[in-house]
Amino acid sequence: MRTKLAFVSCMVAVMLFCSLGIIQAKEWEFTPTPLDFKFVFGGLGKPVLKVSPGDRVRLWTEDAAQGRIKTVEDVFSKSLAPVWPDVNPQTGPIYVKGAEPGDTLVLKVINIEPAVDQAWSALIPNFGFLTQTRFTSMLHEPLPELIWIYPIDKYKGTVKFISRLGAGKYEVEIPMKPFLGTIGTAPADREVFHSLTPYFHGGYMDNNETGIGATIYLPVNVKGALWSTGDVHLVQGDGETNGVAVEAAAWVTIDVLPLIKGKKVATPRIEDDEYIMSVGSARPIDDAIRIAYVDMINWLVEDYGFDKWDAYQLAGQVARVRVGNIVDTYYTFVVKFPKKYLPQ
Amino acid sequence: MRTKLAFVSCMVAVMLFCSLGIIQAKEWEFTPTPLDFKFVFGGLGKPVLKVSPGDRVRLWTEDAAQGRIKTVEDVFSKSLAPVWPDVNPQTGPIYVKGAEPGDTLVLKVINIEPAVDQAWSALIPNFGFLTQTRFTSMLHEPLPELIWIYPIDKYKGTVKFISRLGAGKYEVEIPMKPFLGTIGTAPADREVFHSLTPYFHGGYMDNNETGIGATIYLPVNVKGALWSTGDVHLVQGDGETNGVAVEAAAWVTIDVLPLIKGKKVATPRIEDDEYIMSVGSARPIDDAIRIAYVDMINWLVEDYGFDKWDAYQLAGQVARVRVGNIVDTYYTFVVKFPKKYLPQ
Amino acid sequence: MRTKLAFVSCMVAVMLFCSLGIIQAKEWEFTPTPLDFKFVFGGLGKPVLKVSPGDRVRLWTEDAAQGRIKTVEDVFSKSLAPVWPDVNPQTGPIYVKGAEPGDTLVLKVINIEPAVDQAWSALIPNFGFLTQTRFTSMLHEPLPELIWIYPIDKYKGTVKFISRLGAGKYEVEIPMKPFLGTIGTAPADREVFHSLTPYFHGGYMDNNETGIGATIYLPVNVKGALWSTGDVHLVQGDGETNGVAVEAAAWVTIDVLPLIKGKKVATPRIEDDEYIMSVGSARPIDDAIRIAYVDMINWLVEDYGFDKWDAYQLAGQVARVRVGNIVDTYYTFVVKFPKKYLPQ
Amino acid sequence: MRTKLAFVSCMVAVMLFCSLGIIQAKEWEFTPTPLDFKFVFGGLGKPVLKVSPGDRVRLWTEDAAQGRIKTVEDVFSKSLAPVWPDVNPQTGPIYVKGAEPGDTLVLKVINIEPAVDQAWSALIPNFGFLTQTRFTSMLHEPLPELIWIYPIDKYKGTVKFISRLGAGKYEVEIPMKPFLGTIGTAPADREVFHSLTPYFHGGYMDNNETGIGATIYLPVNVKGALWSTGDVHLVQGDGETNGVAVEAAAWVTIDVLPLIKGKKVATPRIEDDEYIMSVGSARPIDDAIRIAYVDMINWLVEDYGFDKWDAYQLAGQVARVRVGNIVDTYYTFVVKFPKKYLPQ
Repeated sequence: MRTKLAFVSCMVAVMLFCSLGIIQAKEWEFTPTPLDFKFVFGGLGKPVLKVSPGDRVRLWTEDAAQGRIKTVEDVFSKSLAPVWPDVNPQTGPIYVKGAEPGDTLVLKVINIEPAVDQAWSALIPNFGFLTQTRFTSMLHEPLPELIWIYPIDKYKGTVKFISRLGAGKYEVEIPMKPFLGTIGTAPADREVFHSLTPYFHGGYMDNNETGIGATIYLPVNVKGALWSTGDVHLVQGDGETNGVAVEAAAWVTIDVLPLIKGKKVATPRIEDDEYIMSVGSARPIDDAIRIAYVDMINWLVEDYGFDKWDAYQLAGQVARVRVGNIVDTYYTFVVKFPKKYLPQ
Repeated sequence: MRTKLAFVSCMVAVMLFCSLGIIQAKEWEFTPTPLDFKFVFGGLGKPVLKVSPGDRVRLWTEDAAQGRIKTVEDVFSKSLAPVWPDVNPQTGPIYVKGAEPGDTLVLKVINIEPAVDQAWSALIPNFGFLTQTRFTSMLHEPLPELIWIYPIDKYKGTVKFISRLGAGKYEVEIPMKPFLGTIGTAPADREVFHSLTPYFHGGYMDNNETGIGATIYLPVNVKGALWSTGDVHLVQGDGETNGVAVEAAAWVTIDVLPLIKGKKVATPRIEDDEYIMSVGSARPIDDAIRIAYVDMINWLVEDYGFDKWDAYQLAGQVARVRVGNIVDTYYTFVVKFPKKYLPQ
Repeated sequence: MRTKLAFVSCMVAVMLFCSLGIIQAKEWEFTPTPLDFKFVFGGLGKPVLKVSPGDRVRLWTEDAAQGRIKTVEDVFSKSLAPVWPDVNPQTGPIYVKGAEPGDTLVLKVINIEPAVDQAWSALIPNFGFLTQTRFTSMLHEPLPELIWIYPIDKYKGTVKFISRLGAGKYEVEIPMKPFLGTIGTAPADREVFHSLTPYFHGGYMDNNETGIGATIYLPVNVKGALWSTGDVHLVQGDGETNGVAVEAAAWVTIDVLPLIKGKKVATPRIEDDEYIMSVGSARPIDDAIRIAYVDMINWLVEDYGFDKWDAYQLAGQVARVRVGNIVDTYYTFVVKFPKKYLPQ
Repeated sequence: MRTKLAFVSCMVAVMLFCSLGIIQAKEWEFTPTPLDFKFVFGGLGKPVLKVSPGDRVRLWTEDAAQGRIKTVEDVFSKSLAPVWPDVNPQTGPIYVKGAEPGDTLVLKVINIEPAVDQAWSALIPNFGFLTQTRFTSMLHEPLPELIWIYPIDKYKGTVKFISRLGAGKYEVEIPMKPFLGTIGTAPADREVFHSLTPYFHGGYMDNNETGIGATIYLPVNVKGALWSTGDVHLVQGDGETNGVAVEAAAWVTIDVLPLIKGKKVATPRIEDDEYIMSVGSARPIDDAIRIAYVDMINWLVEDYGFDKWDAYQLAGQVARVRVGNIVDTYYTFVVKFPKKYLPQ
C-alpha cells in the first residue's frame, strides 16, 4: 500500500476516533523561559513537551536574536557576537509519542502570529550571498554592519521598510507572509547541528514554503522524533540574499498529524493546496536542487505510479524550483510539483 | 539624466514622430530558408534583415531540431547527432541601424504563435541536470534516449503530455506559455558562441521570462547589434531539468524599440508589467545568481536612487529568483524585483 | 609576541624542563576494546586517556571497516551497511590537561605502523568522485560495489595492487606512505560530527600531509581538547577519488607538544620540514581552497611579517595546492607554502 | 591497434624517414609584428606559418601585456584596460599540413627562453581567486591594483621577488620553471574563444605541466589544426591564485610531432618522463577535475588495457591532481598518472 493511502487512512481514523472521543486530542501551549531555548538540533536533554499524534501545540518562538536587536544601534558586533553561539534559539525539543526511527513525522502549520510590534533585519559582516563569508573566504574588507527596524501593522498585515541611507527617506509597506525559518527533528547518525544549519533533518531551511497551511514531513531519526522550531520570518525574498529576513518573535500553532510508520522521508517534504514539494539542503546550489529534484522524482514514482522517465519528463515541463536560502551553512532549495498534474 | 528617463523620453519621441508620420516605422516579415539558419552568435556574415528602431519584425523560428523529430523513433542519436553541430538554428542575424558598441538594444516580444501541430521533448544521453554530462563527467552508463510528442491544441492553448512508459497511459493537458528559448546579440571581445550557449550577450537563456509582453535589453557589442532569436518553448518547467522543453517551430513578432544610446547593460535585463529583471548566465549556479543579483542592485542604485545597502536589504525581502535553465553550457537565473516596491 | 616565537619558546621550555627532570613527560599506550571506539567528534563521554603536553601516546587505530573486510566478498552492502553508522571508528577522545577553549593543540606524528598483513580498498555504491552521490544526486544506477585486497610487505614497505577484472592479471607494488585519515578535536558551537566528516575541527580530512613527521595544529573548542584519531591510509592518491584509500589497522605514535595558549587556529594547520600548510574542508572545492588559502595569507601576515598583498603575490608564485579528498561530506584541500621562501 | 602503438610506430617511421632523408624536417623561426598577434582561438584569417609534422618551430611569444608593463606604475587601469580586449597576444595560428578534423595534434616543447631582463606580475581589480570577480560577483570594493617587477637572472636561472609594501624590504630568489601559459588549437563547433579562455581546445590553461620536455596532445577541429601559443610564465604557484604569474616575453621552440590520425583527444593531454596527464578546463573546480579524471580513466582503459573499475581503483591510489589555474573564465586542473604504474 502506498504511503499516501496509508496517510489518508490514518487521517480518517484519527478524525473518526477524535469525533468519537476515543482519542482525546490535546492542545498544548508552551512559552519557553530563556533557559529553555536550544541552539542545536540533536543531542538534546529533556524534552519540553511530550505530545501525541493528533495533538495541537501553540508555541512561543523567539526571534533569531532573542530580543537583543531593538534599534538600529544594535548591530551584530554589539548584540550577537558577544553571545555567540547562542544565536537562533529554538523552542523544543518536543517528544512525539510513538515516533520511532524509520518513521516520518507530519506537522501542519495552523497559524503564525507575530508577538511583537516591530521586526528587524540586518547586514552582518561576512554573512550573506553577495559577500565573502567564512566559507567563500576572500581578502576583502567586510561589508558594513547595519540594522533595519520594520514596524508591524497587524491590522493591515504588513511590515514597513524604511530606508536608512539614501539621500531622501523611502518607505514602503510589504504584506506579511510569515513562515517558520527553522523546523526540524534530531539528525541521524548521532550528529548534532547548530540551529543555523539546515540538512536532511530540516532545521534552518529559511524557505517561504513553511508558512501557514503547509504540511511538513520530517524524518524520525531518534525515538520521539525530538523536533524543534523557531526563527519566524514575517517576510523574506527568495534566497534571503542579504542574510537576514524580517525577523520577529511569534506565536506558532502546529498540529501533530498521525505519523507515517515504517517509512522515513529521505529529505524534508512539504505539501500545500497547490503543490507537493521536496526540500534539498546542501552546498553548492547545484547539489541542493539535485537532492530535492531526485526526491521529487522518487515521490512521483513511488506514490503516484509514474514511470521514472515519464516523471522526469513531466516534471521538466511543469515543476517549479524555489530558492529557500543561499546564505546558510547549507543552501536550501524546494522543488514543487503542481497537484493538478498528478494522476487522480 | 537617468537611463530610465532617457528611455521614457525616447519612447515618447518615437511615438510622436510616428504619429506625425515623420518616422515611418516598418513591419518586416522573414522566413529563413534552411541555408539561412545560423548556429552561432557572433562572427556572422551578411545580416538577413536591416531594420530601424521603431520597426516590427515577424520571424519564422525553427524548433531546436529543425523539424527532424516527428515521432518517438527520432531519438537524438538518429535525428541530431548526425548533423551536429547544426543544432538549435537561429533566425538572424538582424542588423539594427544606429546601434553602436556601448549601446543597449531594446526588443519587445509582441507575439509567439506555434507554427506546427505537434511539439516534442526528449531525454538526450549525457544531457540534463540529473545525469552526468560532458562537464559533470562521471563513470555511469548514460540514461536512455527517448522522445515525447506533445500534440498542440491551439484553440484551448494547450499541449498534451502523453506518458510513454508507465503501466497505464497517463495524459494531461498543460496550458501553453510560449517564450523565446534563445535571443541574443553578437558577443563581446570577438568571441563566437554556439547557439546552445547563454552568456553576457544573452543567447540560449532558456528562461520563462522571455515570453509575450517581455521587454528585453541586450548589450550592443558590434555595429548593428546583430541579434538573432529562435528555439521557441511552448512550455517549460523551472530549470528545464530533463534538458529539453516542449519545442516547436513558431512565428515570432518582435518590436525593435528605441536604442539606449551610450549605455550598455552588463548582462541581459527584462521587464514586464510586474517586475524588472536581471539575468545571469554562468556556472556554477551560485555565480549565475550572483551576476544577476549584483546587476539588480546596481540597477536599483543607478536608476531608482537607492542607496546600495538599502537596495540590498529591500531586495533581500521582496526579490524573487527564478531558475531559467540548469542544463546548458552555462546556467541561467533571473532575479526579479517587483515594480510595486520601486519608488515612484 | 608572535605565535611562532611563543611556540618556539614553549618548545625550548619543555625541552629544558624535561632534560632537567622537572617535567616528567609520560608515554601512554592505548588499545581500544570494540566498545571504546567512537564514531563522532564532539559530544563525547569519558576520555580514554588524560595526557599532558610533552607526553607521547601510542594508539591502536582500527581500519575504517573495523576489520569487517577481509576478502573480496566483503562488499559494502554485506560488511558495512548493516552496522551503519558505526563506520570509521576513532581512537579517543584524549583529554589534554591545560587545554582551554581558545588554545591550539599541537600534535606531532612520530610513527605509523600497519598492524595487519593486508589492507583493503573498495568501490562503494553512490560514494566517490566520479559517481552520483547522496549529495550530487542523479537518476543513474549506482556503479558496482567491489573490494580490492592489498597484501602488505613490511620489509619492502609496499602494498600490492592486484587487478580484479581485466582479461589478464596485473599486479604492481606501491611504496607505503601512511598517514592519519582522521584526526581532530571536539568541534565548536556544541556541534557533533560523524567521523566521516571533516570540518574546521579537523576530522576526516583524508589528506596525505598528515603522515610521519607532520606537526598538526588543531583548534581547542572545549576543555581538554578531546581529540581522536584513526582511519590510517597506507597509500592514497590525490583526492581519494574512488572513495576509499588503502586502509589498514595501525599503531600510531603521537607526541602531544606544548599548547599554544590564547590563540586558536581558524582551521587545521600542518607543518613539515619543507612546508607550512593550511587546511580547508568545505563544499564546493572552490570554498575548500579559499578557506585554506586565506588562512595561509593570514599566517604569512601575522607570523612572518608580510604585507597582505605581498603575501598574496608571493604565494601566488610559490605556493602549492594539494588535494586531500574530494569524496567526503566536505572536501579537503591543503595550501602549502615552502619554508625556503619565508623570511628568516 | 591502440593509439599508443600507432603513435610509437609513427614516431619510428618519422625517425626512419628523416634519417634516410626521405622526409626533410624543417626548422622555422617566426617573430610576429604587433599586427600579427591574435587575441582569440578560432575564426582566424591567414596562418602565420604552414608547417609539416616533423618540423621544428622557434617562436617569439609576447608577454600577456604585450610589453606595456615595465614599472610598478603600469597598473591594469593604465596599461591594459585601455587596450581591452587586446590582451594576452598569441603567436599563430600555425597551419599543420595533413591535419584534419578528427585527428590529434602532437607538440613537444623543446625550449623556452625568456627574451627580456625583467618579468612582471600584478594584482588586477576583480580578477583572481581570493576576490570577487566578474563571475563571482559581489558588493565589495575591489582589491587594490598593484604591479611587481621580477628581475631575471638568466645565469642563475632565477627571478627575484621584491616586496613592495611591508615595513622592511624582503627579497627572495625563485628558480625559473618556464611553461606555456597558453597553447591550443581552433575550437570545435565554429566557436571562437578569447585567448584568456581555456576549454576543450586547450588555450589559456595556465598550468605548470606545459613546460620544457612536455608533449602536448590537442584536438584537431579544423583543417590544419590552426594552433597558437603564448603567455609564457617563468614561475607560477598552483592555481595562479593572485591572477597573474611571473610573465615575460620568450623564445619558444616546439617540435611538431607526427599527427595521430583518425583519433581526436576529448580534452588536452600531456606527457612527460614521469607522468601521463589529462587536462580539464571548466567551472566549477569539481567539473574541471571530473573532465580530466574521466579522460584519464578512459586513457588507461583504451590504451593500457585496464578494466574500467581496476583503473578507477588504481588511479585512486596513485594518481596526482595538480591545480593549473583557478582564476580564468574556466579553471584548469591536471590529473597525472605515474608511468611507473603502467603495465609494460
